[in-house]
Amino acid sequence: MTQATHYDVQALTTFVERLFEKAGADTEVAQVVTRVLLEGELLGHRTHGLNLVSRYIDGMLGGQVKARAQVLEQVSDSGISSLFDGHYVLGPYCVSRALDCAAKGATSQGIGIAVVRRAAHIGCLAAYLKPYTDQGLVAMLYSSDPSVGLVCAHGGVDPVYTPNPIAAGIPTQGEPILLDVSMSTVTLGLVGQCRDAGSRLPHSVLVSNDGQLSDDPRDFFTSPQGSILPLGGQAFGHKGFALALLVEALTSGLAGHGRKDAPDQWGASATAVVIDPRFFGGLQAFTDETSFLGRLILASRPLDPERPVRLPGQAGLALRRQALEQGASLSSQLVADLDRLAGQLQLPALSQ
Amino acid sequence: MTQATHYDVQALTTFVERLFEKAGADTEVAQVVTRVLLEGELLGHRTHGLNLVSRYIDGMLGGQVKARAQVLEQVSDSGISSLFDGHYVLGPYCVSRALDCAAKGATSQGIGIAVVRRAAHIGCLAAYLKPYTDQGLVAMLYSSDPSVGLVCAHGGVDPVYTPNPIAAGIPTQGEPILLDVSMSTVTLGLVGQCRDAGSRLPHSVLVSNDGQLSDDPRDFFTSPQGSILPLGGQAFGHKGFALALLVEALTSGLAGHGRKDAPDQWGASATAVVIDPRFFGGLQAFTDETSFLGRLILASRPLDPERPVRLPGQAGLALRRQALEQGASLSSQLVADLDRLAGQLQLPALSQ
Repeated sequence: MTQATHYDVQALTTFVERLFEKAGADTEVAQVVTRVLLEGELLGHRTHGLNLVSRYIDGMLGGQVKARAQVLEQVSDSGISSLFDGHYVLGPYCVSRALDCAAKGATSQGIGIAVVRRAAHIGCLAAYLKPYTDQGLVAMLYSSDPSVGLVCAHGGVDPVYTPNPIAAGIPTQGEPILLDVSMSTVTLGLVGQCRDAGSRLPHSVLVSNDGQLSDDPRDFFTSPQGSILPLGGQAFGHKGFALALLVEALTSGLAGHGRKDAPDQWGASATAVVIDPRFFGGLQAFTDETSFLGRLILASRPLDPERPVRLPGQAGLALRRQALEQGASLSSQLVADLDRLAGQLQLPALSQ
Repeated sequence: MTQATHYDVQALTTFVERLFEKAGADTEVAQVVTRVLLEGELLGHRTHGLNLVSRYIDGMLGGQVKARAQVLEQVSDSGISSLFDGHYVLGPYCVSRALDCAAKGATSQGIGIAVVRRAAHIGCLAAYLKPYTDQGLVAMLYSSDPSVGLVCAHGGVDPVYTPNPIAAGIPTQGEPILLDVSMSTVTLGLVGQCRDAGSRLPHSVLVSNDGQLSDDPRDFFTSPQGSILPLGGQAFGHKGFALALLVEALTSGLAGHGRKDAPDQWGASATAVVIDPRFFGGLQAFTDETSFLGRLILASRPLDPERPVRLPGQAGLALRRQALEQGASLSSQLVADLDRLAGQLQLPALSQ
């Protein structure tokens, strides 16, 4: 166990923004990227929160990752449909610009879509959504990374594509429903954590490179590499596989940049779709329906009396509320990491 | 085993169109509904093909299902975003109109969306897609039925929502990728088939009303009723559950008509989203990418050497090609059913 200390969210924001700016990011880029990473942290996505700050800044200092707003190129724009080329600008900036662009289309004509190719690492998709649900918009995000193959086709052995998450923010009359789910059974992060901990995965969701189902993370990290099963596993993996192909098409396909280009640098294809319910049955009827459905679900009898049914995002939003009230709890390891970075950039430490 | 006879697809089309027209459908409605049901049949979706003809016509004759084009009401239209109220017009007509409307938006500005509430039964979602992929468009369909609850929340016992399928047609340089997958582990159809056959389900994907996991279809058909587990099952059902909520929001939520209205007549909420790749990285780059990905997948070593990896829709499209060449193979039971209907409507029998 590492110790945790609480930090005021506003002070943390200023600290992280300064790190990004001092490392060479435009102010706008620093602010947007900080907001998204901090939001991931507050929602409890620790692996996709502030622990990405040092990775992102190392990428900037190494020159692979860009941090100037003007490097992000808008390739096409129909008013409601856009394509951006990120040219490896910090991913949270690229995706936020895409979402803003799609939201503009949505509020003007009901739906908007923006596709980004070659964004640097984009963090946690759930962290992008609340600003849009706060405006009464439905926001969806899809992503893939054409430089990486981790997941097998249904019935296949070889790793072909990425976990290809689908995320969405759905407004209700209370807190939004925030979902962020990969089209694979598990993510690479979990496989790595189990390997590091010397433990097994909770289910046999890996295929070794010689075609054996396995729960042993070492069967994934071989050369040539193993695979992760699609969502649905052996029995119903045709469904997760099919949805993953749809995500590939909506991201790398529309982007016009994908596996066919054999990119050798980690870089996301991401697609934002935003819908304004006011152009259909109206926002009131929409949130009446989503709130009614939410109540139906929360009233479900639980399978396990110790584990009441929850809505997607509910646990994360509770953590977020708590952090905003009491400060964000950061592990001593993360703080040491951020302080090292501050020292390197000749800025005051967080922990002072 | 029932015997099967082959019927010329054009002759079959004319026969079914006449049934619908004689039963009171407008010519346009009869043509569209026939095309969709026949397409489902040709793709091998026997439960959502021509065996729906008698159900649909019975509904028309009973007055619950409408078949006049003008009854379908366009409630709103922004040019790219529309809402229709089906007023229980034959579902394939409603959904086809919605798709056409969304496709018009897509070809004019890159994306279009149309939502339908209160469509009568809409058949097989995969059967709608090929006309759009043939035009180089990506077509997506989502549906739910707010009058029905079959699937439980992740970790819950009570049936709350429908299997909520997501379907999509993705153009390639060869045949399209056609996917049509429910966000539940299995569909009600399969549970019913197993009950009728006196067999078990292949996996424990049911929850009895007293909260026990089960593979026995009789545990579903109780009063109060059991539930079907979300896609992902016990281990990963939070993913299928989350995606099902997104489908509810995109369909009944945007439609402004859903579970909150407690509809007592079977009727779908369906949403069509169509995207034109020409507004992003271009159609050539899109199909280069999807074709490349398809080849990568088909080159995967299979887990079971007897079962090569396939793309979604590949098996159905092969059946369809065969039927177009050799005639559609219909069971003698289906032919008897259609002939009974023809007799009732004073039309010549199919089998003459």
